[in-house]
Amino acid sequence: VPGSRGGDGGRGAGHVFLLTDYGYDDEFAGVLRTVLAREAPRADVVDISHGVPAFDVRAGALMLERTVPHLGPGVVVAVVDPGVGTARRAVAASVVREGGPRFLVGPDNGLLAPAIEVLGGATRAVALRREPNDDAGATFDGRDVFAPAAASLWCGESLDSLGEEIDPASLVRLEPPVLSTRPGEIEAEVLWIDRFGNVQLSASPSDLDTSGIGELLEVTAAGRRFPARASSSFSVRGSHSPEGAPIGLIVDSNGRLSLVCERRSAATVLGVSERDVVTLRALSGSR
Amino acid sequence: VPGSRGGDGGRGAGHVFLLTDYGYDDEFAGVLRTVLAREAPRADVVDISHGVPAFDVRAGALMLERTVPHLGPGVVVAVVDPGVGTARRAVAASVVREGGPRFLVGPDNGLLAPAIEVLGGATRAVALRREPNDDAGATFDGRDVFAPAAASLWCGESLDSLGEEIDPASLVRLEPPVLSTRPGEIEAEVLWIDRFGNVQLSASPSDLDTSGIGELLEVTAAGRRFPARASSSFSVRGSHSPEGAPIGLIVDSNGRLSLVCERRSAATVLGVSERDVVTLRALSGSR
Amino acid sequence: VPGSRGGDGGRGAGHVFLLTDYGYDDEFAGVLRTVLAREAPRADVVDISHGVPAFDVRAGALMLERTVPHLGPGVVVAVVDPGVGTARRAVAASVVREGGPRFLVGPDNGLLAPAIEVLGGATRAVALRREPNDDAGATFDGRDVFAPAAASLWCGESLDSLGEEIDPASLVRLEPPVLSTRPGEIEAEVLWIDRFGNVQLSASPSDLDTSGIGELLEVTAAGRRFPARASSSFSVRGSHSPEGAPIGLIVDSNGRLSLVCERRSAATVLGVSERDVVTLRALSGSR
Repeated sequence: VPGSRGGDGGRGAGHVFLLTDYGYDDEFAGVLRTVLAREAPRADVVDISHGVPAFDVRAGALMLERTVPHLGPGVVVAVVDPGVGTARRAVAASVVREGGPRFLVGPDNGLLAPAIEVLGGATRAVALRREPNDDAGATFDGRDVFAPAAASLWCGESLDSLGEEIDPASLVRLEPPVLSTRPGEIEAEVLWIDRFGNVQLSASPSDLDTSGIGELLEVTAAGRRFPARASSSFSVRGSHSPEGAPIGLIVDSNGRLSLVCERRSAATVLGVSERDVVTLRALSGSR
Repeated sequence: VPGSRGGDGGRGAGHVFLLTDYGYDDEFAGVLRTVLAREAPRADVVDISHGVPAFDVRAGALMLERTVPHLGPGVVVAVVDPGVGTARRAVAASVVREGGPRFLVGPDNGLLAPAIEVLGGATRAVALRREPNDDAGATFDGRDVFAPAAASLWCGESLDSLGEEIDPASLVRLEPPVLSTRPGEIEAEVLWIDRFGNVQLSASPSDLDTSGIGELLEVTAAGRRFPARASSSFSVRGSHSPEGAPIGLIVDSNGRLSLVCERRSAATVLGVSERDVVTLRALSGSR
Repeated sequence: VPGSRGGDGGRGAGHVFLLTDYGYDDEFAGVLRTVLAREAPRADVVDISHGVPAFDVRAGALMLERTVPHLGPGVVVAVVDPGVGTARRAVAASVVREGGPRFLVGPDNGLLAPAIEVLGGATRAVALRREPNDDAGATFDGRDVFAPAAASLWCGESLDSLGEEIDPASLVRLEPPVLSTRPGEIEAEVLWIDRFGNVQLSASPSDLDTSGIGELLEVTAAGRRFPARASSSFSVRGSHSPEGAPIGLIVDSNGRLSLVCERRSAATVLGVSERDVVTLRALSGSR
């Protein structure tokens, strides 16, 4: 257990990690932090991000999936929760990992499932009890349900004590992204466009092997075609694009394929958005 | 006292909470944190938010008022301070609460008063001494006055030692927001529009009782009328609005009335901004 | 050394400070924090800012230079790194200061040099070793190189152990900003425009003495002329500007000259951007 109630818990025994769509302008994320400071005063709280686009469960799930491989032991509170106040379940799940357990707490709307899968699957899960609240509406479960549950887990309370046990396999899952591979061609979905305009695809280096796509390729995005070149950094050799902005295809820091453009937004050059589908095709030989 | 100079202070003895209009792009909030790290290295610092609109003392005061009920013991540093460098006072106040005292530190321009009131009123207050600074201008009191005072309080120094005692009743207060209730009608001010476009009003559920407004109502905002319905979540039943976006009236997480619209910005649908005044009127029966 | 491997290190022995251009929407900064939480679980991490404009090494270097005088002991991780994955060196440098050493870790592209100089110069520096990484691309050195190096330094490992020693004088430096002073006139570069629109110049109060510019002056910016007045706060006396927005010249909180406008953006009034050059000229007598 990360901490132990009454003991000195905490430091070294795991952190509390936060990922939400609360943004930074309002106090929502701050209130999560104040509840944790009050209920688990020795816990160190680590913000993963509060910048998930509002209501975008898919984007939050992908961010959490990308982040959890790097987490040490502790409790993750993830909140992207357009259905707050409705019948959707609030859940907590535990995963056994070297160094200590990881707990994940949040709404059961698909947000947690990919991260749990990446970590090896949940051993147990519960539907969190909701304490009745007479003074205020049931529209801020981050404050009223998820952060208190995380504080309890961090302090060493058992998962059982927080609600009724449920089958981890019953957790809601999102549709998998588009990905299809055949000789000379990969069709892939844009999973994520980051601050720098890098375009992360649902495809992996193994899909290049399967399709036989080599160093030179052509990207079709939004009906337009762009020459591209496999690269190991954002500095792409050659100038293949008609706009003079060479598009590179890299294995990114998550081990996925990403389309990039040196010191420019590849998303802008390609004219793509998250959830768009692009096609990669092999080009034979050099031009 | 939260910590004690020379002792191990800190963890469990209270946190330092920050609320400013410094934003996130510049280093201003970071410099507050570095001063606290230097002067009170064992203190855990909790960001409430640095996203208060620039210079907007009223928005900062409302945010602080909404947040302080959730704080454990410690010291709050609040800075929205367009008058920095002028004759406005820099102040610190103490509030007695279960679990330990709360100290609030900031400019005396109305920012602190509502939060102090919500906490039960200040027992004592001081006007902070300003140390002369030859090398740089007096335009960053967060760094030069408020954070050092907060570090001293957290470390166990007395309020007295920081400046001259003042009457807590002398702290500057802002004008109260518009709110008037009569049978069948509530006139209320928009206090806050959050990231999701929810429109928090100055009215409370008791105003619904007073005015006799029931489940169905009409909202007049910016000269236009919208049907609305009392709801317990952001999922509003029925489609009352001409635009097909049903407006809900909820008791929000602060116990105030808020106008909401499922997965859309109610503020955009209604065309309202903070400080606008809207009218709620009872609708007789269902349509 | 800030901490000591195996000891209780940490609190009071220095912090880890972060400054990046990662922004707040993606999880990049969060992943840095998770790596530090995992590798140096007792370290307190202080965000300076993650809001440096993307790829803007100069802006990051200036921010770091402004911030380091306020830091206590510890390790700074600074990442603005458009050349990640190329041949640019990854470096760490140590500076001897009262209260304990400061370590600075980041890319060798000019980002660190001004801060090191302000702190008195590096005593030692190393080029960080890069561990081969088979699973993912070499495009996130913050996660893969800089944060692990910072965790090692915080835990008490020696600089030597992290890579090959290099001459601190070999660290890359940026071009110095424009600044020229002659009787009655200062030509200065806009170093920084902050959230409030204050315009920080490359000039200092001593340049006013050198040029003999007094209380009344004229600013030439983007081909237009504005009367201005030396001031000690953002509240500028008199209304000199044709637009009715009095421009003030203050000694700002970094000890530099800044052009300001009360509760308005001086940058907008003057029509200037970072890197622009403005001219200050003495006005004889009052108008």
